[in-house]
Amino acid sequence: MSLIQLIYTSTVSETFEEKDLTAILASAKKANAEANITGLLCFDGNFFMQCLEGDRSQINATYAKILSDKRHQALELLAYSTIDKRSYSQWEMGLVPKAALSRPLNLLYTASGLFEPYSMSAASAAQFLRALRNAMPLL
Amino acid sequence: MSLIQLIYTSTVSETFEEKDLTAILASAKKANAEANITGLLCFDGNFFMQCLEGDRSQINATYAKILSDKRHQALELLAYSTIDKRSYSQWEMGLVPKAALSRPLNLLYTASGLFEPYSMSAASAAQFLRALRNAMPLL
Amino acid sequence: MSLIQLIYTSTVSETFEEKDLTAILASAKKANAEANITGLLCFDGNFFMQCLEGDRSQINATYAKILSDKRHQALELLAYSTIDKRSYSQWEMGLVPKAALSRPLNLLYTASGLFEPYSMSAASAAQFLRALRNAMPLL
Amino acid sequence: MSLIQLIYTSTVSETFEEKDLTAILASAKKANAEANITGLLCFDGNFFMQCLEGDRSQINATYAKILSDKRHQALELLAYSTIDKRSYSQWEMGLVPKAALSRPLNLLYTASGLFEPYSMSAASAAQFLRALRNAMPLL
Amino acid sequence: MSLIQLIYTSTVSETFEEKDLTAILASAKKANAEANITGLLCFDGNFFMQCLEGDRSQINATYAKILSDKRHQALELLAYSTIDKRSYSQWEMGLVPKAALSRPLNLLYTASGLFEPYSMSAASAAQFLRALRNAMPLL
Amino acid sequence: MSLIQLIYTSTVSETFEEKDLTAILASAKKANAEANITGLLCFDGNFFMQCLEGDRSQINATYAKILSDKRHQALELLAYSTIDKRSYSQWEMGLVPKAALSRPLNLLYTASGLFEPYSMSAASAAQFLRALRNAMPLL
Amino acid sequence: MSLIQLIYTSTVSETFEEKDLTAILASAKKANAEANITGLLCFDGNFFMQCLEGDRSQINATYAKILSDKRHQALELLAYSTIDKRSYSQWEMGLVPKAALSRPLNLLYTASGLFEPYSMSAASAAQFLRALRNAMPLL
Amino acid sequence: MSLIQLIYTSTVSETFEEKDLTAILASAKKANAEANITGLLCFDGNFFMQCLEGDRSQINATYAKILSDKRHQALELLAYSTIDKRSYSQWEMGLVPKAALSRPLNLLYTASGLFEPYSMSAASAAQFLRALRNAMPLL
Amino acid sequence: MSLIQLIYTSTVSETFEEKDLTAILASAKKANAEANITGLLCFDGNFFMQCLEGDRSQINATYAKILSDKRHQALELLAYSTIDKRSYSQWEMGLVPKAALSRPLNLLYTASGLFEPYSMSAASAAQFLRALRNAMPLL
Amino acid sequence: MSLIQLIYTSTVSETFEEKDLTAILASAKKANAEANITGLLCFDGNFFMQCLEGDRSQINATYAKILSDKRHQALELLAYSTIDKRSYSQWEMGLVPKAALSRPLNLLYTASGLFEPYSMSAASAAQFLRALRNAMPLL
Repeated sequence: MSLIQLIYTSTVSETFEEKDLTAILASAKKANAEANITGLLCFDGNFFMQCLEGDRSQINATYAKILSDKRHQALELLAYSTIDKRSYSQWEMGLVPKAALSRPLNLLYTASGLFEPYSMSAASAAQFLRALRNAMPLL
Repeated sequence: MSLIQLIYTSTVSETFEEKDLTAILASAKKANAEANITGLLCFDGNFFMQCLEGDRSQINATYAKILSDKRHQALELLAYSTIDKRSYSQWEMGLVPKAALSRPLNLLYTASGLFEPYSMSAASAAQFLRALRNAMPLL
Repeated sequence: MSLIQLIYTSTVSETFEEKDLTAILASAKKANAEANITGLLCFDGNFFMQCLEGDRSQINATYAKILSDKRHQALELLAYSTIDKRSYSQWEMGLVPKAALSRPLNLLYTASGLFEPYSMSAASAAQFLRALRNAMPLL
Repeated sequence: MSLIQLIYTSTVSETFEEKDLTAILASAKKANAEANITGLLCFDGNFFMQCLEGDRSQINATYAKILSDKRHQALELLAYSTIDKRSYSQWEMGLVPKAALSRPLNLLYTASGLFEPYSMSAASAAQFLRALRNAMPLL
Repeated sequence: MSLIQLIYTSTVSETFEEKDLTAILASAKKANAEANITGLLCFDGNFFMQCLEGDRSQINATYAKILSDKRHQALELLAYSTIDKRSYSQWEMGLVPKAALSRPLNLLYTASGLFEPYSMSAASAAQFLRALRNAMPLL
Repeated sequence: MSLIQLIYTSTVSETFEEKDLTAILASAKKANAEANITGLLCFDGNFFMQCLEGDRSQINATYAKILSDKRHQALELLAYSTIDKRSYSQWEMGLVPKAALSRPLNLLYTASGLFEPYSMSAASAAQFLRALRNAMPLL
Repeated sequence: MSLIQLIYTSTVSETFEEKDLTAILASAKKANAEANITGLLCFDGNFFMQCLEGDRSQINATYAKILSDKRHQALELLAYSTIDKRSYSQWEMGLVPKAALSRPLNLLYTASGLFEPYSMSAASAAQFLRALRNAMPLL
Repeated sequence: MSLIQLIYTSTVSETFEEKDLTAILASAKKANAEANITGLLCFDGNFFMQCLEGDRSQINATYAKILSDKRHQALELLAYSTIDKRSYSQWEMGLVPKAALSRPLNLLYTASGLFEPYSMSAASAAQFLRALRNAMPLL
Repeated sequence: MSLIQLIYTSTVSETFEEKDLTAILASAKKANAEANITGLLCFDGNFFMQCLEGDRSQINATYAKILSDKRHQALELLAYSTIDKRSYSQWEMGLVPKAALSRPLNLLYTASGLFEPYSMSAASAAQFLRALRNAMPLL
Repeated sequence: MSLIQLIYTSTVSETFEEKDLTAILASAKKANAEANITGLLCFDGNFFMQCLEGDRSQINATYAKILSDKRHQALELLAYSTIDKRSYSQWEMGLVPKAALSRPLNLLYTASGLFEPYSMSAASAAQFLRALRNAMPLL
């Protein structure tokens, strides 16, 4: 049983509504608690960027479900690797406050100063998420 | 546009027939030629192990389609990484002859001497495929 | 005379009782004091995970005795290596309190969040034990 | 399922006879073929040095049986490690001809010029066995 | 979209006046804010040394415009490289106070103790600018 | 006087004609011979990719002239670095035959299999040019 | 004139008496002060372990004298190497208090928990002496 | 213009007098200020050891003058290398107080405990001077 | 006695004549044979570049004499370092044929394609001389 | 039992005669064969340089005997280290022919071109002996 970390990005669907985010988080937390998956979710109203870590089979099954969820589209894997130790073990699914995706943070890692996860490499996506985690209040 | 290499494994569905493999290869070659994807496919009658390399968006779109193909099930990503140079540029989708998945080759990399791709790490899957490629006749 | 560190895991036998643990510890401490063996023992009621360090001959003789002890079964070596310096010199046989084998600690190193020593690699077993040692009160 | 390589040494028991070696080899080959274990055995009439590689559980079960075999005694593990690729996949249990354990070979690796496996480190035992393998005729 | 850092040096034109510097900074800040370029400018009355960081296309377009600006001449690139993270994200175009280009600072990095950017290597130009940045008050 | 290697890419202007390439090469060879610049030029009818190596001042003066040449547009630096030894010392300006920019070569380094120099990193541009050089007949 | 560090061990002779140690130290300090040799001496009543550092010729002449001193026997060099900087410059011949050769310290570096210098490697002897030095009160 | 650090040693001439040192320092400071040379001078009444850093031509011209100065003899270069950053930028020519060349300091780096610069390697001369600099009061 | 390699460059004096070179070589060979110095000399009619290797004192004494030789001027050390093994042991003073200082060789290492030793770094001077040595016929 | 390599040098005593060398070799070979020591001896009529390799205790006992042998004097250890594999296993005590200690060989490693073992570092002594071994005819 190897431990895997997966990071993907996606684009919100046109019919997405505010309450959908609440629903996504609630069901993600429930399913992740059962599957021993932990992780972090960023959403700026337009793009999602999510990190999932846990058992390889569970991560793959969860990603397959996420791929068929109509609330977002154009999913792309940014990173997928075996890890020794989780980075987000404190959250069944932590939500990064939208305000944390600020221009000063984005400007450090991107050319545009915007939150543009599709243009991120695997390494910069992982760095960006760790920077966000370090700024998160613990539950 | 970054170049990505993806390796996954899966299990054949119960209704899979001989002619399905021919159909898979034919449509994969056609789709890959259009999407500039190259790669290699192993199938021992029970498990698939496939490597795809090409543009990140194309690889993700292709993998999403493969995930929903009912001819196989239990897909798991073994490896996903950015590469500098392709390893399988000569094949739109090369098919490893079933005879090449021999006990002597498997015994070098696995405990059982069988073709058991679910038990392979990312590194050993990549090594195993390169060993197969080096033994393949060129087209 | 080289210094060796050995880590194994095993499963409690069906007839194991509470008092057996006390007996194991008492006799281990006595035998280890004579053989200059030091180490740490984890037991969650189901699995044992034990680290022994000392002279190679003594470690081998001790492990041979442990292998034939009917109070546990399915012994598997997780790690065996030459060391420069002991890590557990303060304990003839320290007992990790069951409560220390908590979900938060396990979740950092395993996919399930449970204490599953059979699924651990040599490196993660050694890291897990050091994390436990660092949290142990000194004698 | 991880691949393990184990090397141990032992001393022949006083009642050991020529025919015992034939019996050991025959039963080892049979059991190893079933357990997908491969390896090499050295015996100079006095000391055994054996390498076993295969699935971790199988290697542990086999070593437990070897430990209780009365035809030898004073077993000591020299090396135990996870490997990527087997080194002795061509032999269910190869027997190093006694003549190969020569003074010139031993002199390169030991102070005495004799076959003294108990004085070998894990690294030199592994090197010594590979040197023997490279000089073995293939089956 | 890759992030680029470019450092160049140039010589003031003969007709350059005090107020030209104010104009350069004002228009640079405006243009850089639009193009998401950040950076630092040194000017000792004789030589300019400027660092620009941002999107590759934007940096190239900006440098092409700078090359045709008659207020300076003899432009030479000192450094041009892909970066992971910006170093000057707090300034649309920071101006190093002339007094900071002191003999003690210059003496550490140059043979003459003067501000002689044409004689600097890529590495020493980058080090020199970081030393200046670290001594700058934040806006 | 440091030795510099510069690689840029650009797009042919709409009014570019066959004979312009001949003129560019002739005047480049003449100017480079005077300035001790050596290098290589690729042109597929659409994009230019050129490497220049020589004295830093000369390289900068030459690049400034190239930037203002109306026969191409959208110039972007791909790489600029100090070198110990030239790679193209045999050519005042070698021209890579258009046929050498083949799909098999491009497929090894790019996602599309096309000659798309704007999408190349500094490292892959330098590797790609060396691969072309190694396949060039000597003058 | 190169600087050398030599570490040897030896066994006390049967006729050795308490006062011999005082005599050894007194004459060593006198001779070392003349020869600019510095060092450290351990003695547990049974074994000596001594480190000498200084000029190569002086160290060799001193060791030759020590070899023929009848108050100890079975001398073995543990380490001999060129050094950049002395480690024991504060002592013409420091004496490690017998109590410092404690079971807890020995247990960290040896299998037996006893002071057994003959079983030490060059590296562990040097580490062991530095640990003792760091615990010594300065003169 | 590359930055050079040169260390040499020499022996005082027989006719050298106390006041000569004052004269050497005064003229060195004046000449070095003009040539932008910085450095450090040690003199124990017998040997000189001096470090000079600055422009290569200036360092060579200065060393040529020093070589023909009759107040010392037997000059030998200990070290000559290109540096990125000066180590002695605060002194046009700092004078190490004779008392700083103490037996404890010398004993750390030499076999004799004396100031014997001719026996020093390039590396130990540079380390020795930095240790002296770190102990110097700033001007 | 450490082995030193010294490389310097210089400019011919105005009164230098053809026969002076013959005289320099003859006396250098004689003096070097006595001092066990070996080396290589380049001369293009304008600049000298010479490598000397041997005992540190001898190299320093020889260089002091060379510095005061009126047949050349503007001497600058390019490199001075301790070596393990000589590179020019076959020549008391080898003379590089003027024709070997060709434009193709110079172009590989310099911006101008000319023999300009003053612009060479220590590393490139040493590389350049080794390239010449490898092309020299043995005596 | 660790394997040790020791290299020392010494000076012939005044009363040494030709036949003494024959006697030394004969008794060394006999004693070494018993102690499983192998090695090489150089003698130029003035200095000895000898390498011994084997069991640590045996090497120390042998060196103690050599130290008290009146046929040479001024013994100095050049090197003493633990080895993995012998370098001179083919000789109980090989004698380097005096003619092999030639000026060309010595000139590569020493400043004087003479056989001067006292001036050699541990590293150059070991290199020098290996160069001699490689030129020796096998027995």
